[in-house]
Amino acid sequence: MLNLETLSMDQYSFVANAFSFGLAVMASTTIFLWLMRSSVAPAYRMAVTITGLVTAIAAYHYLQIMLSWEHAVSIETGEVVATGEPFNRAYRYVDWLLTVPLLLIELILVMKLSQQETINKSLKLGGAAALMIVLGYPGEVAETIGTRMIFWILSMIPFLYIVYQLVIGLKESVDKQPENVKGLMHIAAYLVVASWAFYPLVYLLPLAGVTGGSAIVAVETGYTIADIVAKAVFGLFIFTIAVRKSEAEAGASGTSASKKA
Amino acid sequence: MLNLETLSMDQYSFVANAFSFGLAVMASTTIFLWLMRSSVAPAYRMAVTITGLVTAIAAYHYLQIMLSWEHAVSIETGEVVATGEPFNRAYRYVDWLLTVPLLLIELILVMKLSQQETINKSLKLGGAAALMIVLGYPGEVAETIGTRMIFWILSMIPFLYIVYQLVIGLKESVDKQPENVKGLMHIAAYLVVASWAFYPLVYLLPLAGVTGGSAIVAVETGYTIADIVAKAVFGLFIFTIAVRKSEAEAGASGTSASKKA
Repeated sequence: MLNLETLSMDQYSFVANAFSFGLAVMASTTIFLWLMRSSVAPAYRMAVTITGLVTAIAAYHYLQIMLSWEHAVSIETGEVVATGEPFNRAYRYVDWLLTVPLLLIELILVMKLSQQETINKSLKLGGAAALMIVLGYPGEVAETIGTRMIFWILSMIPFLYIVYQLVIGLKESVDKQPENVKGLMHIAAYLVVASWAFYPLVYLLPLAGVTGGSAIVAVETGYTIADIVAKAVFGLFIFTIAVRKSEAEAGASGTSASKKA
Repeated sequence: MLNLETLSMDQYSFVANAFSFGLAVMASTTIFLWLMRSSVAPAYRMAVTITGLVTAIAAYHYLQIMLSWEHAVSIETGEVVATGEPFNRAYRYVDWLLTVPLLLIELILVMKLSQQETINKSLKLGGAAALMIVLGYPGEVAETIGTRMIFWILSMIPFLYIVYQLVIGLKESVDKQPENVKGLMHIAAYLVVASWAFYPLVYLLPLAGVTGGSAIVAVETGYTIADIVAKAVFGLFIFTIAVRKSEAEAGASGTSASKKA
């Protein structure tokens, strides 16, 4: 149970601003992606649509988190006073349960593999991602350090499987991508791994005895930055890859090129 | 009458999160379907449009359910206290009255039967579905177990008729579908039957003497999962069938094939 009264008023406002920033970034990325959807070839529109869905879902949850943060506290003569309503951190898990599998699916879709391979890899990676989130949740809400530790370990199994798949398993598919996007594709895959590595570390903070106002600020702004990198920045990489591949394919075939001109 | 004070704060929050998850799933599925609408052949656009309508209507009702859940309770020093405002479970019936007939119509539309057969089957199945919901409602709000039981039986008659139609009645039409979607079509029909089978069971829980906080959690999250399967997951099956049939038909006719290249 978080004790929000350990926050100074400045700390409380800083986190509120971070949530508002998260909402603004996610919502504007969504609108950008959906408005620009028609500038990629039809084969990549599903990838761009889902990329926008991920940031849209995240925008919704940042709105909910922001409101929950607001209702959990009232400011009285410069002091943070808890209202009794809990700050609902579970919104993050609800968000991840939906967005993390979709993130992996957008990466797979932009690769334009065969239909069978797309379904196969989406089920495997998406399923592992959902399992990772479901296993993390009981530890997050657990009262004891022991339970938290057990579910951290359980959740790390699908996490490491996904990292392995992104770094090694998808390598062959990435190597078959056109030259002009291979670099971006590698960056996108590493961006996922790097931004995701942040989450299990934050999860462990209470075990390391980090508590109080500064810990709450570190966790909440940390998750927000990681979410922005993993969803919005990653999404813009996916969009750029889709644009470049569309251009390369339009250049290769006469008909589509003239249609695009 | 539900006694929400039998819920622990964690149980109350868990259900709130389930409703928020339901809203996010329904809304994002709607946006996906409507944005991707142009990627199916014109013959299947009505099916995809209605599939998105079903999830849109569900999203609206999950918002209402979520707000009603929020207003029915206030959290005071970690305890769930009823505000006196009732939790309005009737939103589910209002939702089903609209979405359940539409669900069956999307399945019929994606089959692309003759115009006469489409109208015929839509009226029969859609009408039976509406009747099923209308007959279920008086039992849901009834004070006595006897009344609940009577309307359960009455409501099961159209329910069994629909199951019969989906499993046996539509078999002939499904068998005429192209090879690449026949499997998906069968899964879609069974998905409806399997997810729907959950509702009459939940309806009976109060008769089985299941009450208290855990019963409320089971019923509300159970309905939410069943709704997600019956509307969003089912909807994505309908969309996939529409895409595959569009591709197959474009491949069969020269003009559309060149249009897709």
